[in-house]
Amino acid sequence: MSKLVIVGTVAFDAIETPFGKTDKILGGAATYIGLSAANFNVDQAAVSVVGGDFPQEYLDLLTDRNVNIEGIEIVKDGKTFFWSGKYHNDMNSRDTLATELNVLEHFNPVVPENYRDAEIVMLGNLHPLVQQGVLDQMTKKPKLAILDTMNFWMDIALDDLISVIKNVDVITINDEEARQLTGEYSLVVAARKIHEMGPKYVVIKKGEHGALLFHDDHMFYAPALPLEEVFDPTGAGDTFAGGFAGYLASTGDISFENMKNAVIYGSTLASFCVEKFGTERMVTLKKEEVNTRLLEFKKLTQFDIELT
Amino acid sequence: MSKLVIVGTVAFDAIETPFGKTDKILGGAATYIGLSAANFNVDQAAVSVVGGDFPQEYLDLLTDRNVNIEGIEIVKDGKTFFWSGKYHNDMNSRDTLATELNVLEHFNPVVPENYRDAEIVMLGNLHPLVQQGVLDQMTKKPKLAILDTMNFWMDIALDDLISVIKNVDVITINDEEARQLTGEYSLVVAARKIHEMGPKYVVIKKGEHGALLFHDDHMFYAPALPLEEVFDPTGAGDTFAGGFAGYLASTGDISFENMKNAVIYGSTLASFCVEKFGTERMVTLKKEEVNTRLLEFKKLTQFDIELT
Repeated sequence: MSKLVIVGTVAFDAIETPFGKTDKILGGAATYIGLSAANFNVDQAAVSVVGGDFPQEYLDLLTDRNVNIEGIEIVKDGKTFFWSGKYHNDMNSRDTLATELNVLEHFNPVVPENYRDAEIVMLGNLHPLVQQGVLDQMTKKPKLAILDTMNFWMDIALDDLISVIKNVDVITINDEEARQLTGEYSLVVAARKIHEMGPKYVVIKKGEHGALLFHDDHMFYAPALPLEEVFDPTGAGDTFAGGFAGYLASTGDISFENMKNAVIYGSTLASFCVEKFGTERMVTLKKEEVNTRLLEFKKLTQFDIELT
Repeated sequence: MSKLVIVGTVAFDAIETPFGKTDKILGGAATYIGLSAANFNVDQAAVSVVGGDFPQEYLDLLTDRNVNIEGIEIVKDGKTFFWSGKYHNDMNSRDTLATELNVLEHFNPVVPENYRDAEIVMLGNLHPLVQQGVLDQMTKKPKLAILDTMNFWMDIALDDLISVIKNVDVITINDEEARQLTGEYSLVVAARKIHEMGPKYVVIKKGEHGALLFHDDHMFYAPALPLEEVFDPTGAGDTFAGGFAGYLASTGDISFENMKNAVIYGSTLASFCVEKFGTERMVTLKKEEVNTRLLEFKKLTQFDIELT
């Protein structure tokens, strides 16, 4: 069992989809990553910050799923980061209705002493300087540092982002963001350019179209499970990353072959995340359900052609 | 070796992409389907119509690839169907610049006597009444009738289209067209609705995102090979259909398991088609190249997870 350090937001989300809307519910990248990684045998700690308005029950929920919360700072007189968004009918695009940084604005991440030697570090979507700050606190070089980011940081902190990208082994990024970062339309070419920026492994997330894993000249493709209904896509990308990191941490095997399995696990867990609002589905998820769906992924993708 | 009857256009295309433009070159659904199916051991005949302006060398090219052309009517004083289109920078959308139906306007397909007992019928994109006309000429019910269509026929001949869809076993259709035909956004739900319209098997083509095969509650997903460069997408969908039909005809096995292989072959052949303008790549394609790329598809998609 490896140690896994996660940094990311722990937040309130208010979500509107064609199926309904929520009040402020539990959200945030570190939350989704942690709940997803919790499906594996890992010793994980979340590094984040919340305000005095953050309910103890949400912290307990993370603790119950074996997410160590020592590294989640509570700013008593501050307010928790809040995001609100509304999805369009096709669920593939959304408008941000509100972003209140609150306690996130002056966030200085502190990795708990006991996790500074973690083998795997998952840098969830946050300011690249915060991501770098976590890397800097590690007392030994992690076996694998994984970074997730988004277009927002390319727009406002590109130089910092490029600096931290240099220092990680794996990047997970959306297709459109990969294109923005490299100026290349072809994802194969974009992945190669990102590879040249530092990361030995590049994971390009394509939402309902699955995810691509690149390493040197090797490619692997994990589809998203075609679903009758996507109820709420919020957190799917983070859940993917959490499954990816959690599986690698639990197996301790960071070979390309095993990373294929990690993206399949990521895709599998993300397929649950979108079935209900927010984290609702992830907190009730059972091991047998995950295993059943993994078999569906096998059926969906495996074939046996004899060359003629 | 099964017999395969193909109906579709044999045409002149003029194509403009960000990489260049062509004069009138060989094109048409039946052309691409036939050239693709020619990679398998099949006895195939194309049913179509051309004008007196159609070069003998193009007909010879089809004959050389073992496409029987008895069923390609030559209207001496008519002009060949002409299509011209311009692709946008992302290669995923295009504008039609010209469509001249010419001899296609009064096309009455005639299936050669010797092919009226063919086991597999591939109804390429054409007016649904022409597609039905081919089915009606078969002296025994084909083992498998496959229909490809497009949104154009949904717009102008929906009732005829729905009638012929009732009579086929497999439909191949784009994602957007599946949505248009059913009014459903989810491809899983759309496939079920199309299934209820008749076809036992539904193949939804998603372009650069691959293809989905549906049968009852079974799903299979074939990715498109991620490419450095898509040079010209023209004919990719027809090449996919030709590979699908050709493989099934050559194996004579129309089980769902074998259809998985058929969509992988379709996807493999389509990945070649887009590498050069028009049919250029398909006419030089060698068996070893196909086999090499099939292995790439295996590497791209196959994984080996042990459930824990």
